[in-house]
Amino acid sequence: MSEFITPLEKMIEAFRRLPGVGRKSAERMAFGVLDMTDAELADFIMSVSNGKASIHPCRRCGNITASELCPICSDESRDRSIICVVEDSRAVISFEKIKEYKGMYHVLGGVISPRTGKGPDKLNIASLPERIVSEGVTEVMIATNATVEGETTAMYISRLIKPTGVRITRLAYGIPVGADIEYADKLTLLRAIEGRTSF
Amino acid sequence: MSEFITPLEKMIEAFRRLPGVGRKSAERMAFGVLDMTDAELADFIMSVSNGKASIHPCRRCGNITASELCPICSDESRDRSIICVVEDSRAVISFEKIKEYKGMYHVLGGVISPRTGKGPDKLNIASLPERIVSEGVTEVMIATNATVEGETTAMYISRLIKPTGVRITRLAYGIPVGADIEYADKLTLLRAIEGRTSF
Repeated sequence: MSEFITPLEKMIEAFRRLPGVGRKSAERMAFGVLDMTDAELADFIMSVSNGKASIHPCRRCGNITASELCPICSDESRDRSIICVVEDSRAVISFEKIKEYKGMYHVLGGVISPRTGKGPDKLNIASLPERIVSEGVTEVMIATNATVEGETTAMYISRLIKPTGVRITRLAYGIPVGADIEYADKLTLLRAIEGRTSF
Repeated sequence: MSEFITPLEKMIEAFRRLPGVGRKSAERMAFGVLDMTDAELADFIMSVSNGKASIHPCRRCGNITASELCPICSDESRDRSIICVVEDSRAVISFEKIKEYKGMYHVLGGVISPRTGKGPDKLNIASLPERIVSEGVTEVMIATNATVEGETTAMYISRLIKPTGVRITRLAYGIPVGADIEYADKLTLLRAIEGRTSF
């Protein structure tokens, strides 16, 4: 037993393929499954399969939904004049958690990446200019991640939607609130200086 | 979307029920599932169900196995004169990892716990005296965890097997190697003093 018995090893490997799961956590989860009753395991598998089967991108914004439109697109109280462009639905959830942003979203489903060969055609980008016009949008806030690929994608989108005349904004970059300047990396500090405001 | 859409929430809750998985990790895993292809998910589910279905306790020692006997019980090169009594198969794996212990195991499948109403009859204990006699065992090393319940279980087993005349030993307790005495809790320090050796 210098290595685990095969079916257990396969189960551990399956858990390891999930994002953020290391070897040790995968082992704990696999043993957790062994400790489950058959009914508990059936329920686990059902929840996972059902989730996967019933969730798909919102027809309008690309956010995840179990219906045709996502909860945000179908919420009549949201401000339709502003669209926040994000890489994925995880970002939507982060925005929604702060309960401050009341506009709409446009979920790209990734970023432009020459490295992985992902071009704009593989992303939910083409429908954005059309949405801006047909929905009477006045501002597009680009909120891709602060990475090279996120920046490239932001640039691409900005150029693509410029002809619509919409106001295009970008999230502010700088020192995270509560963080020590000493620990900020060079690029963040540079952005914080560039984006400095008067007081 | 102040809360997640229902099928996603159910999937997150399913992952949360696995040991050691917090809310944030469960969310990442659920999104990981959404990012999988259908074939990848089918493979994940297959690995988990197969693992659960094919793994059961070893007929002799109670360790997990996919066969009748576990890899250790079926290994002819192991030293059959010593049995290490552990709470679960995770402990077996920990012992096996250090590659020093060459004896057999006896896996209890838990500890005696008045709190959860788990009595000795719910554990793999009854077959131990019989094993000691029939397998010609000369030493039983009790390696239950250093908790109140682990201690109680160790006491119970010790009393149960005493009549066989086998040598009964217990793992040493003390300061973990590399740890600072300053950070050792009172009980550990007490045990370290009690178990002190001459040099």
